[in-house]
Amino acid sequence: MEKAEHLGFMAEAVKEARKGLREGGIPIGAVLVRKGKVIGRGHNRRVQRGSAILHAEMDCLENAGRLKASAYADCAIYSTLSPCDMCTGAILLYKIPLVVIGENRTYRGPEKYLSKFTSLLNLDLPECRRMMKEFIASRPSLWNEDIGE
Amino acid sequence: MEKAEHLGFMAEAVKEARKGLREGGIPIGAVLVRKGKVIGRGHNRRVQRGSAILHAEMDCLENAGRLKASAYADCAIYSTLSPCDMCTGAILLYKIPLVVIGENRTYRGPEKYLSKFTSLLNLDLPECRRMMKEFIASRPSLWNEDIGE
Repeated sequence: MEKAEHLGFMAEAVKEARKGLREGGIPIGAVLVRKGKVIGRGHNRRVQRGSAILHAEMDCLENAGRLKASAYADCAIYSTLSPCDMCTGAILLYKIPLVVIGENRTYRGPEKYLSKFTSLLNLDLPECRRMMKEFIASRPSLWNEDIGE
Repeated sequence: MEKAEHLGFMAEAVKEARKGLREGGIPIGAVLVRKGKVIGRGHNRRVQRGSAILHAEMDCLENAGRLKASAYADCAIYSTLSPCDMCTGAILLYKIPLVVIGENRTYRGPEKYLSKFTSLLNLDLPECRRMMKEFIASRPSLWNEDIGE
């Protein structure tokens, strides 16, 4: 896949993150892409749903619905931020072969472990970094809750 | 904690699993225990909610609600079955220091990885094994979907 295509799908994940921010939530978004089509999208809903598990990637996988292993095998997941332990685990459970992230400078999940099993591509986008940096500075205790710190 | 106490909390997880089975779902249950009290309980809801993420441990953590890291630090999670990659990741995200499982003979998650960060106690209960064995034999394709196979 060309970089322009990755940037296009990441732009959809960023839209989800911005939607979350407008709702008063944590600005992280994700989309699940299969054979060039978005089949699931979501954003962090800790605040909106009082949820301990709806990180962006989890919400996205949930919204994609029940799929067979053979469907996930054709997927890539795009997330505006490096996946945490939980989201990494979900990606590994479903053996999603490609994970594309917006950045990992404001938070870095277990990328070394993830990379043992799947491909990880970091687009390192200033837009994603800025969004998280501003959010973390403005709501540090909410952010710490979300990452179990 | 004494073994009798662990068995008592595991019996609560088994109740959840049996509830799931009665609902037509996958019989795996979990409870989150803090300072000797159950503060969250849940069971697999793949069938009931059409969910890709509500494994027993996830449903249990979700039902426990939003907690601070300091609360999880006092918790143990009981699950009737060895946690998969996703549930292992959620346990690691929240740094739950003790994981007690009913069995790991019908399915075994990444226990070696989990054990690097937290304590794992396997009660190896015939009741849990039998429940899963019967379920897997009766609904193999549903089971495979649940574990991403």
